[in-house]
Parts: sequence; structure tokens; C-alpha cells
Amino acid sequence: MESFGIVFVFGLLSLIVALFLGIIVIKKSSGNEVMVKISRAIQHGASAFLIEEYKTMSIWVIIFAAIIWFIISPYVAISFVLGTILSVLSGYLGMAIATRANGRTAQAARTSLGEALKVAFSGGSVMGLTVTGLGILGSISTYLFALHFLSKTINPLIVITGYSMGASFVALFARVGGGIYTKAADVGADLVGKIEAGIPEDDPRNPAVIADNVGDDVGDTAGMGADLYESYVGSILSGVILGSFAFGISGVKFVYLIAGYGILASIIGVLSVLLIAHGNVNPQKALNIGTVVANVVAVLFMWYLSVSVIHNIGTFFAILSGLVVGLAIGFITQYYTSGNPIKIIAKSSSEGGAATTILSGMAVGLQSTFLPLIFIAVGVVVAYLTAGLFGIALAGIGMLATLGINLSVDAYGPIADNAGGIAEMSGLPEEVRERTDILDALGNTTAAMGKGFAIGSAALTALALFSSYAKAVNLSSINMLSPYVVAGALIGGALPYLFSSFSIMAVSDTANLMVEEVRRQFHEIPGLMLGKADPDYKRCVAISTKGALKNMILPSAIAVIAPFATFFAFWKYGKNALGGLLVGALISGVLLAIYMANAGASWDNSKKFIEQGNFGGKGSEAHRASVVGDTVGDPLKDTAGPSLNILIKLMVTVSLLFIPYLVKLL
Amino acid sequence: MESFGIVFVFGLLSLIVALFLGIIVIKKSSGNEVMVKISRAIQHGASAFLIEEYKTMSIWVIIFAAIIWFIISPYVAISFVLGTILSVLSGYLGMAIATRANGRTAQAARTSLGEALKVAFSGGSVMGLTVTGLGILGSISTYLFALHFLSKTINPLIVITGYSMGASFVALFARVGGGIYTKAADVGADLVGKIEAGIPEDDPRNPAVIADNVGDDVGDTAGMGADLYESYVGSILSGVILGSFAFGISGVKFVYLIAGYGILASIIGVLSVLLIAHGNVNPQKALNIGTVVANVVAVLFMWYLSVSVIHNIGTFFAILSGLVVGLAIGFITQYYTSGNPIKIIAKSSSEGGAATTILSGMAVGLQSTFLPLIFIAVGVVVAYLTAGLFGIALAGIGMLATLGINLSVDAYGPIADNAGGIAEMSGLPEEVRERTDILDALGNTTAAMGKGFAIGSAALTALALFSSYAKAVNLSSINMLSPYVVAGALIGGALPYLFSSFSIMAVSDTANLMVEEVRRQFHEIPGLMLGKADPDYKRCVAISTKGALKNMILPSAIAVIAPFATFFAFWKYGKNALGGLLVGALISGVLLAIYMANAGASWDNSKKFIEQGNFGGKGSEAHRASVVGDTVGDPLKDTAGPSLNILIKLMVTVSLLFIPYLVKLL
Repeated sequence: MESFGIVFVFGLLSLIVALFLGIIVIKKSSGNEVMVKISRAIQHGASAFLIEEYKTMSIWVIIFAAIIWFIISPYVAISFVLGTILSVLSGYLGMAIATRANGRTAQAARTSLGEALKVAFSGGSVMGLTVTGLGILGSISTYLFALHFLSKTINPLIVITGYSMGASFVALFARVGGGIYTKAADVGADLVGKIEAGIPEDDPRNPAVIADNVGDDVGDTAGMGADLYESYVGSILSGVILGSFAFGISGVKFVYLIAGYGILASIIGVLSVLLIAHGNVNPQKALNIGTVVANVVAVLFMWYLSVSVIHNIGTFFAILSGLVVGLAIGFITQYYTSGNPIKIIAKSSSEGGAATTILSGMAVGLQSTFLPLIFIAVGVVVAYLTAGLFGIALAGIGMLATLGINLSVDAYGPIADNAGGIAEMSGLPEEVRERTDILDALGNTTAAMGKGFAIGSAALTALALFSSYAKAVNLSSINMLSPYVVAGALIGGALPYLFSSFSIMAVSDTANLMVEEVRRQFHEIPGLMLGKADPDYKRCVAISTKGALKNMILPSAIAVIAPFATFFAFWKYGKNALGGLLVGALISGVLLAIYMANAGASWDNSKKFIEQGNFGGKGSEAHRASVVGDTVGDPLKDTAGPSLNILIKLMVTVSLLFIPYLVKLL
Repeated sequence: MESFGIVFVFGLLSLIVALFLGIIVIKKSSGNEVMVKISRAIQHGASAFLIEEYKTMSIWVIIFAAIIWFIISPYVAISFVLGTILSVLSGYLGMAIATRANGRTAQAARTSLGEALKVAFSGGSVMGLTVTGLGILGSISTYLFALHFLSKTINPLIVITGYSMGASFVALFARVGGGIYTKAADVGADLVGKIEAGIPEDDPRNPAVIADNVGDDVGDTAGMGADLYESYVGSILSGVILGSFAFGISGVKFVYLIAGYGILASIIGVLSVLLIAHGNVNPQKALNIGTVVANVVAVLFMWYLSVSVIHNIGTFFAILSGLVVGLAIGFITQYYTSGNPIKIIAKSSSEGGAATTILSGMAVGLQSTFLPLIFIAVGVVVAYLTAGLFGIALAGIGMLATLGINLSVDAYGPIADNAGGIAEMSGLPEEVRERTDILDALGNTTAAMGKGFAIGSAALTALALFSSYAKAVNLSSINMLSPYVVAGALIGGALPYLFSSFSIMAVSDTANLMVEEVRRQFHEIPGLMLGKADPDYKRCVAISTKGALKNMILPSAIAVIAPFATFFAFWKYGKNALGGLLVGALISGVLLAIYMANAGASWDNSKKFIEQGNFGGKGSEAHRASVVGDTVGDPLKDTAGPSLNILIKLMVTVSLLFIPYLVKLL
């Protein structure tokens, strides 16, 4: 039988490969002086954001850790802090390499498409392998430490729940804050720079231009890193808890081994892509081969582990069902965000203007929720039939086992996007831009599929943790015929709506601050418009950062306060009502998240479709209408939508950790 | 102890007062020749719509009745058909009087505000009192007939469930079809007439102008009549079922008596308004006094009935809790759709254009769901604590007991609205328009409150029927820890999204057909633009009608097919999964319905706020942006949103009626 040791080996291997790829990226030429200057400015801006973000966040981490320390246990408080630190690290490293891979990808695109793909994908893989490496090492170390040294004092499952909650806590801040930041900076730069001052996009005279570029990195890269780190750790947590109920320590070992071998499979996939990436390779084909290789290898490993570790072939099918559901959601998402629906939206932009653009995008987004929910529902039933409650957790793990390669593909997107921007700004030849455009377009599709995996796994993980919650507070049934449960479910259903409302409003509030600052600089800095003086980039960055971090507190507070408030409000029936709350939030949150992600992506892509010359192309009435759709979709798909996954999981983790202690107080 | 007989008396009284008020309205002067001509054209258009609508609908009614006849019982099939006929009658009568009260209100406004209020409110009251009168008489006759003559063959509760399903069936068609019709005609008339041909709104040369005006009546009046008839009958049904479980025949009698005395209270309220309506009365004050009088009287009746009929004061508090929740939702709706939020939306129209208008309206709509859901949740718990499951049904009845006056106030809105249009078109003096504007503005507020009552009562009625479903199929628990229930809930949650997607798309598809027809007439009818030839109004009406009725089938089919499909797909666990489906649909449907209704109303009112001269007034950039918001909001608030209430209730009624029979087949 396999041992825990091999998991450490795979975790470390993941970090070593990431380090190795990181060094390869750094050693590449970063291009001419202009390219270096732009790249540096973005790097500094990103650091400025991180410093501010960590300052704000650390206060809340300390407060929350203190509460855990006194109510639950100092050990849990420490594991919580560890979870937050590793989450921060995942986001930071991902962003650090992304801001360095951008320019180098543009430079490599001067040689060939294959070279550019290699650099961009290596950059993405650093993130993919760091997140999975840190995720698994942190989780298994916490668990084993608690098992060997603390098990007389506290249940190791509680300690590892603290670790996972730390990851969720930071992820929510990072997603909401990063999401507000990136969209506010985007709007601020466009509204004053492009429209009022009439200077082109990405013009260095625009004080918000760096904030805008930084925004792409902190939202799409750092935010996504923290988000998927959280998903990964959360799915492992649900597996460890339910696995230990079902199979004792073998169940736990099984979960870690699946994750470990999944990393190995991902590394094999990543290396396959890099081996193929040469000359005029078809990048879509290269990424597909890598993904297929990783998944086939992973499936073989999972079969082997199911047979050899817990001698239960049912668990294999549970994992497989998760993988299939994840792929299905990915393809459905791809259809709604890049298939026929975006042509319908583009057509309505050309026929009826902004209002019909919005309506048809809404209709597409609303409809796109249906099949994913059917697949998740079927996945839940299949997983349960093959491996009980543990099966539901395993299905979630199945989706995320090959996160290493999936996230690499996902993180490669923003790098290719920025590379295109840098190529444009620094006046590289047309062919370079063409190559980065090919890479960028591919990135949009992979991003949509990645969001499908994130949402699907969030639903399964939340369901598995929800069952763990019921076990932890001794609820044998969460009965919808009970008025307390129904009342909880109604309130829970409304929370994602309230949360989304706050985060959408936060984007517009922060955007307004940014607009004012950019206007001020244009008026007050002499010679700025003539290019004789530099704008104060840092001030824009700081203002946007502060605005984002201030405005993110209210929505984030919902996730933490709601479970406690509900529990105490219903008192004797608090744990039942809270069960209802978690289910209600899950159903309504998953639906809103898919709706927002897909409506947003379909508006974005229908705008791109028009920009390719359809329905009049750039500058046409149809294009203007599609820009409205894109602007509406931005905060939905990049701020409110992706945060809902974390909201759901953070609420269930908070309940799982605290409520068993609070129940005793009643 | 009171007897059933008095309920018949109050039901008949309701119809007699309605008839009396109808005669008063008809006897009023219908104004000058132009006004009569316009009014006639609208009446004819409305008839054309009704004929087409009933033709299409009758096929489905016959098919469904045949299925019921063979699977369940011929008696249930007959009561189903009775339910559909009375529903059609409610909608028809409401529309008939509304299309006659419009012009007469405009004419009365030449005398005084009080006279105009009297005519408009009398018109609304005909609808309010007809719906409640027909609703209660049909329900109690069906129940008593089944009790006395059929009880050896079939449970009377099943017969009355068929009656209620008939009401829901027609209501769904009427709401969806009417909603598609009105919005498609609106867009068609505006897009070609106002924008392309450059002729003013409501110009008789526009072939779609009659369809547009008819649309207001068929959507806002006939649709609403069928909708609230369904709500009323459904809430009584849930009360009768749970009342008979809790208190036997006394429980049933209690429910009918509450409804009957509620009608009496409503009549007293209606007469109070008409007594006050003189000279320069403040119309807001007059309506408020009527509503307060009706509600105070109703509360006293309910207290008396609780004490004297079932000797249980708890039931009184359950009813009262429903009434309080309804009022609370009404006031919250009023705040979000006419308070500070609409100024925020208007501000964002002026600062950022269409995109920020949409985003801020979305944020307002999303946020506006939270407090209503909290109130519903608290209402459920209070009702349960005071009177058990029966209490939840009673809370729903509490909200609708004074439907007579509430619907009168509600239906008065569109009459006042159309009166303003007729005053404008026929060139009546400025002061007349000012008076109708005052009445119209008040109508918007009352409509928002009415929607709050409709949604709140739908949630409570659906919950009560949902409990009845569980009893009928012997489910003691609908346990969210069961994977089948969770899977059902996930699918159920997605149904309102799918349904909304179809109905929003239906609006744009039908609008496109209308646009083509209007363009064709402008091109092909010689002399039309010069006013020398009449356009073919009927053709526009017929095309819009056909389009609406064709496109409404797909969304409506969801409500009927989904329960069966889920039941059979999950086979042995079908009844559990279906339980989950109903809960999931309830949570997600109520939220979406409130979101859509309030976002739509707040966009509409923020446009009106700008038109009052704020942020640049009519013709400004802000106004153009607000028009986009209003156009987006229209199908949300008038097509998709209001249909969701019916969707939820129709699904639960279908399940309640059919599944107990299907369970026996397994």
C-alpha cells in the first residue's frame, strides 16, 4: 500500500518544476527598452496593490484568528493563519511570474508562435503547479501534524478545517477586492482617458493606465490563484472528512494520494505541452494534447488507487463522474460563450441597439444555467450511488485532481492577453501581434472552461461540506417541511443576491473615485498631456486599491456574519435553520454564478465577434451597443460571479468549524 | 356558528356591486368623437386578441382535461375546465371594463380630479370585485358539490385541486402570452414608428399603435386579472386542504368565511373611496383611507371568526402575520422602486450612460430581494408557531383576504395611464393631462405594492401546497441530505432561469415580427404616411397575437412537463426528487421574480424621474441612457417576472394532483 510520503514527494516535485519553469521564463529576453519600462511599471503597480491589500487583510485575519483562538483552539487559529499565508503566497507568486512573462511572451512571439506559447504557458504553469504544490503540502502537513501531535487534544479534522477556512477567507477578499480593483481601474482609464481626453488605450500619459494593467493581473491572476487554491484545498478537506468517516485513515490517505498523483499527471501534461511547443505549432492542439495526456494518466492512477488503497472500485466511478461533469460543464460553457449564442447577441446589437444586446445576453446567461445544473444533479446522484456521501466529495476532487494542468492553461490566458497589449504599445511588427492574438483568443475559451470547473467543483465541495456540517452538529435530516429549515433556505437564497448587489455597487463607487483622480491629474500636472511630465501612477494605484479594499469589506462580512446571525436568531432551531441557509445559498449562488459568468463572457465575446468585422465591425452602431453589453458584463463575470463560489464555501466552512462549539452553549 | 351560506351571499354581493359600478362607468360620457374613435379601436383590438388567445388556449385545455379525465377522474377534469373558464372570464371582464373606463376617466378629468378618480377607481373595482366574487363562488361551489354528491367516489380536496389547476393553467398562458404581446407591440410601434418613420407616439398612422394600446390592456389588465384570480383561488385551496387536515370541516368553513368576510371588508373599503372621491380630493389619501378601512374591518372579522368558528386564537395571529408581511413587502418594494434607489440609478444614467444605468438597476434589483425574503421567512415561522402548517396557508390567505380592494387599487393604475394617453391624443386641455398624470403616478406606486402582495402570497401558498404534496404522497421528510432531493432542488432552481430565458427571447422574437409588419405596411399601403389611408391595425394585432401565443407554449410547457419528467427520471425516488424540485424552484423563482419586478420598476421610474426635468430631463444623454434601462426592464417586470409566481404554483399544483396517482403505478 502506498504511503503518505509519496504525496510530499509529488507536492515538492510540483514546486521544483514550477521553480525550474520560472527560471526558464526569467532567463528569456525581456525585449527592448520600451517593453522593459512598461513591464516594470506594471510590476511596481502590482506590488503597490499587494502591500496595501495585505495590510488591510491582515487586520481581519488577526481579529478572526483571535476569535478562533479563544472559542475553538489555538491550534486551529494557527492552521487558519497558515491557510491565509499560503493563499497569499499562491496569489503573489502567480502574479509575480505573470507580470514577468507578459513582455517575454511578446518578445518570444518575434521568433515564432511555438516560442511564444512556450513562454506564456510556462508562466501559467508556474502558477498552476505552485497552487497545487502549496495546496497539498500545506493541507497534508497540517493534517499529519495534528494527527500525530495534537490528536489527544483536538480532532485533526477540525484543525484542517481551520486551514481550509484560512484559504477561503483570503480568497474571498482577493476575489472581491481584485475584482473591484480591476473593473474600477478599467472604467476609470477608459472613461477619462479614452473618451474625455481622447488619448488611445494604454497611452502612458493616462495616470490610470498602469492601474488598468495591474488590474488585469490582480483580478485575473492573483484573484484566480487565491480562488482556485481555495477550491483545491476545500475539495481535499471535504474528501478528508468524509473519507475518514467512510474508511478511516485509509480514506484520508486515498484522498491525498489522488491529489498527489493528480499533480504528477498534471506535470506530465505540462511537460507534454512544452515538448510540442515549437515553430508553427497549432497552440489549441498543443494545449489539448497536454490536457488529454494529463487526464488519461490521472484516470489510470485513480483506478489504480481505488483498487489498491481502499479496494473499492465504486470510488473510482465517483471520481470519474466528477471529471465527466466538469468536462461537460466546460463544453456547455464554451458553447454559450463562443458558439451560436454570441452571434445571436451580436445580431441583436445590430438590430436593436444596447437594450436588445442586454436582453439577449441576459437570455443567453439565464439559459446557460440549465444544462450545467442538470449535469451537477446527475453527478451528485451517480457519485452517491457509487460511493455514498464520500462519493460526492470524490466527484469534487475528481474535477480538481488535474487542477495543475487546468490552472496552467487558465493562467496562460491573461499572460497572452497582456503580451498582446505590450506588443501593441511598444510598436512590434504586425506578425507579432497576430501571433499573440491567436494565443489570446484561445485563452478566452480556456478561461470559460476553467470557470465551469470552478463552479462545478464548488457545488460538489459545498454539498460535501454541508453533509459534514450536518454530521458535526448531529442533524440526521435537513427537512424542507420544517418551517425553520425553509425560513433559513429563503434567507440563504437571498444572500448571493445581496452579496452581488454590494459587489456591483462597489465597482461603480470605486470607478467614480478613479475617474475623479484621473481628471484631477490631467488638470493639475503641468505638461502631462504634452508628454513632458509623468503622471502619478502610484496615486491611482493606491486610490483604486484603497477603494477596492474599503468596498470589499461589506460583501465579505456577509459570508462571515450570516451563519452566526441565523444560528442565534433561530436559537433552539438554529442548526436546522442554518442547514436551510446553506442549501438555499448553494442553490441560488451556483445559479447566479453561472448566469453572471456566462452572460458576461458572451457579451465580451459578441463584442469581439463584431470587432472581427461582423455586423459593421469596429465603430459601427452595433459595436457601440456591444460595448455597453461588455461593460455591463465585466463586473458580473469578474467581480460578483466568481466570488459567489467562495461565498458559498466560506459560509459552509465557517458553519462547520464554529457551530458545533456554539451548539454546546445552548 | 356561521354557515357556508353567508359566503355565497358575500360572493354574490361582490358581483352585484361590480355590476352596479360597471353600469355607473358605462353611463358616464365617453367624450368627444376623437376619444370615442380611439377607445373603440382599442376595444376591437382587445377583442381580436382575446378571440385568438382563447382559440389557442382551448386546444391545450382540452388536451389537458382529457389527460385528467382518464388518469384521475372525469369530475376533476370538469372542475379543471370550470377553473379555466372562470379565469378567462375574470381576465375578459376586467379588460372589457378597463377599455371602457379609459376614455371616460379622461372625460371626467375635465370636471375635477375627484370625478376622474371616481371613474378610474370604479373601473378598477369592477375587476377587483369580479375576480374575488367569481373566485370564491367557483371554489366553494366546486367544493360543496364534490362534498355532497361525489364524496363517495372521490376526495373533494382532489376535485377542488383540479379547479385551482385550471386557474393556474390559464393564468400562466395569459401572463406569458399577454406579457409577450404587450412588450412586442410596444417595441414594434416605437422602433419603426417613432424612430424610423419619425412620427410621434400614439400616432394613428402607425399600424402598431392599436396593438400597443391593446397590449397595455391585455398585459397589465387581463394578464393581471387571471394572475390574481389564480393567486386567490390557490391560497384558498391551500387553506382548504390544510384546514381540513387540522380542523376537519370547520377548518374548511373557516377558510371560506375568512375569504367571504374579506370580500365584505373590501366592498366597505371600495365604497369609502367612492364616497370620498369629490372635487379636489387628494387621491393618495382617498385610496389610503379605503385600504385602511378595509384592512381594519377585515382584521376585526378575522379575530371574530377565529374565536367563534374554530375557537383558536392562534389562527388569527397566523392570518395577521401574513397581512403584516404583505404590507412590509409592499413598503419595501415602494422604497426600492420609487425612493432613493431610483435617484441613484438616474445619477448613474447621467454620469456613465447606458451601461452604468443597467448595472445600478441590477444592483438595486438584487438588493431589493433581501428584506422581502427575510419578512417571508419570519412570516413562515410565526405562522407555523401560531397555527402549524395550516398557519402557513392562513398567512397566504391573510395577504389576499382583502384582494378585492387591493386589486381595485391595482387595476385602477392602467386605466389612469391610458386615460392620460387618450387625453394627450385627443388634445384635451393641459389641466386634464395634469390631473390624469397625478392619478397615473399614484398608479405606479400601487402597482409596485400589488406585486409585493402577489409575490409574498405566492411564496406562502406554494409552501402550503408543497406541504400538502408531501402529505399526499406520504413523505414525512424532504431531506436535503438526500442526494435525490438535492439533485431535484438543483434542477428545480434552474427552471425559473430557463423559463425566464425563453420568455425574454420570446419578446424579442415577436417584436421582430411586429417590426417587419409595420415596415411592410408603411411601404405597401399608398397614402398611409399622408393620413389618406388607414393602416391595417387588425393585421398587426393578429400577428402580435399569433407570435405571442406561439412563443408562449415553450415556457408554459416547462411548468407542466418538469414535474412529470423529474418524477419518472428518479423513479423509485421520484417523489423525493420532485419535492426537492419544488423547493428549489420556489427559492430561485421567488428571488428572480422580486429581482426582475423591482429592477424593471426602478428603471422605469428612474426614467420618469429624469423626464421630470432632473439630470437634464427629456432628450438629454441621461434620458437616452435611462430609456435603455426602461426597455431592458420591460420584459423583466411585465413578462418574465410576474409569470414566475404562476410557474411555481402551477408546478406544485400539478404535482399535488397527479403524483399521488402516479406513485401507485410504481
